[in-house]
Amino acid sequence: MKTGFTGAGLDRADHLRLDEARLAELAASFEARILRLGGLDPELDEDGRLGWDPMAGAEERIFLGLRDGMPLFAPLIRAEPGQRAWSVFALLDRMAAEDSAVWGTARSLIEWHNRHLFCGACGSSTKVFRGGWGRRCAGCGLEHFPRVDPVVIMIAEHEGRALLGRQPQYPAGRYSALAGFVEPGESIEEAVARELGEEAGIAVSDVRYVASQPWPFPGQLMIACTATAAGDEIRLDTNELEDAIWVDREGVRAALAGVPGAPFVGPPHFAIAHTLLRHWAA
Amino acid sequence: MKTGFTGAGLDRADHLRLDEARLAELAASFEARILRLGGLDPELDEDGRLGWDPMAGAEERIFLGLRDGMPLFAPLIRAEPGQRAWSVFALLDRMAAEDSAVWGTARSLIEWHNRHLFCGACGSSTKVFRGGWGRRCAGCGLEHFPRVDPVVIMIAEHEGRALLGRQPQYPAGRYSALAGFVEPGESIEEAVARELGEEAGIAVSDVRYVASQPWPFPGQLMIACTATAAGDEIRLDTNELEDAIWVDREGVRAALAGVPGAPFVGPPHFAIAHTLLRHWAA
Repeated sequence: MKTGFTGAGLDRADHLRLDEARLAELAASFEARILRLGGLDPELDEDGRLGWDPMAGAEERIFLGLRDGMPLFAPLIRAEPGQRAWSVFALLDRMAAEDSAVWGTARSLIEWHNRHLFCGACGSSTKVFRGGWGRRCAGCGLEHFPRVDPVVIMIAEHEGRALLGRQPQYPAGRYSALAGFVEPGESIEEAVARELGEEAGIAVSDVRYVASQPWPFPGQLMIACTATAAGDEIRLDTNELEDAIWVDREGVRAALAGVPGAPFVGPPHFAIAHTLLRHWAA
Repeated sequence: MKTGFTGAGLDRADHLRLDEARLAELAASFEARILRLGGLDPELDEDGRLGWDPMAGAEERIFLGLRDGMPLFAPLIRAEPGQRAWSVFALLDRMAAEDSAVWGTARSLIEWHNRHLFCGACGSSTKVFRGGWGRRCAGCGLEHFPRVDPVVIMIAEHEGRALLGRQPQYPAGRYSALAGFVEPGESIEEAVARELGEEAGIAVSDVRYVASQPWPFPGQLMIACTATAAGDEIRLDTNELEDAIWVDREGVRAALAGVPGAPFVGPPHFAIAHTLLRHWAA
């Protein structure tokens, strides 16, 4: 199933990351390019594609990988942790899928670096290594690697209707699948059941995996599932959700198609909630 | 599908984590218990079950949740990051599944705290909050939450045989499913394909999710998949693997049953590789 922020078409060339001499050679080569960013957002060229510039000296950078042998990098800029960038959503709406995937990788890595400038174990400063795919502590030597935070996102189904929720910060009319971070000590299936219980008071069984995608705000792995609800009585956790509703397949299809009078406004096409709802409604 | 380190049977009672007064009340109650540990390992009682002690004063602790209304805690001990604890494997081999799940949750959280004593963004020290399910930076105020690192673990299949690999540190004869961390900017399916390509030179399609489980060394989310290999010619990355072999279903069944003369020694029952191999061989 094709999901958002995937299909970058890059060879990440993991074997080159530890080869500093070869990476320096690649960065100095005529073919090397570095991603053009405005803050954390992509700066597109006149064709609406990602902008790529010739390499510019000694700035810190991340080796994204090879595309048709061409070495691609991203600048390792400073950024405040936890920046939200709703402005980029309009851009993402019309970007080519592979461009979103490449930019999303760069954005996640940049945010990760900015949240790991110091070692969590000893407080010393850390330094980039592995071509931007790690940081090593200058004090205790501990190595830190860019990971992603798994999030379950799911539809509970009851008698042909899907449970959807609304967070207070959503745009007007928007409803989407419920979601939450996977915690230490639980499986995907347990996290789905716990979150539906916590946020909506819905007990489920028979959790089924549907699809996955990365989400670069700042670095989640979205894991989409469906589950069967035992009942349809909602007990809302108003700290998490403003509202929750049951919608049938016809209503979901209308929302995804943007039909006027649809029961809700659906999530954007690059969000896995969209893919999940489309899968469920089909 | 039942997997290892799951089924703790605890109500994690997320709504209580931010309620410091109520948590203090629960910790002071007659029913409260704290997990008995020797270092990071469980200390079992005479019945082979987890040991639980009455609460002991003002030590730092983690609220694990409620079991039949009984508040359960774990001590927040100091531990060196990255400790391996092969010694505990013999213990896990005979522990009740729900005990492994509860202990695994505690171990992952303790390790997480010890790797987040300082803020990665500004280097200041952090302080526990949310009943042990978070740390807040005393300098910049950034909040850190215990997450887990997703790892894909997979069987590539080719004409009825499964690809298995051997890492140098494995016990004698042991082979298992190949595995690797999911990176920023990729889906589960893309990570499976990348890892099989990197470690064994095997190209795959049709990645299928099978099951998941937490792994508390120190805090992974294991995501088990199968995939269809285009060919069977192995090109080994000897930095990652010592050997890789193709084994048919009969061979896998013999290994899992511990039959003498089986083509390899299988992974322990509490590892998801065991569950995955059993599923594939069935």
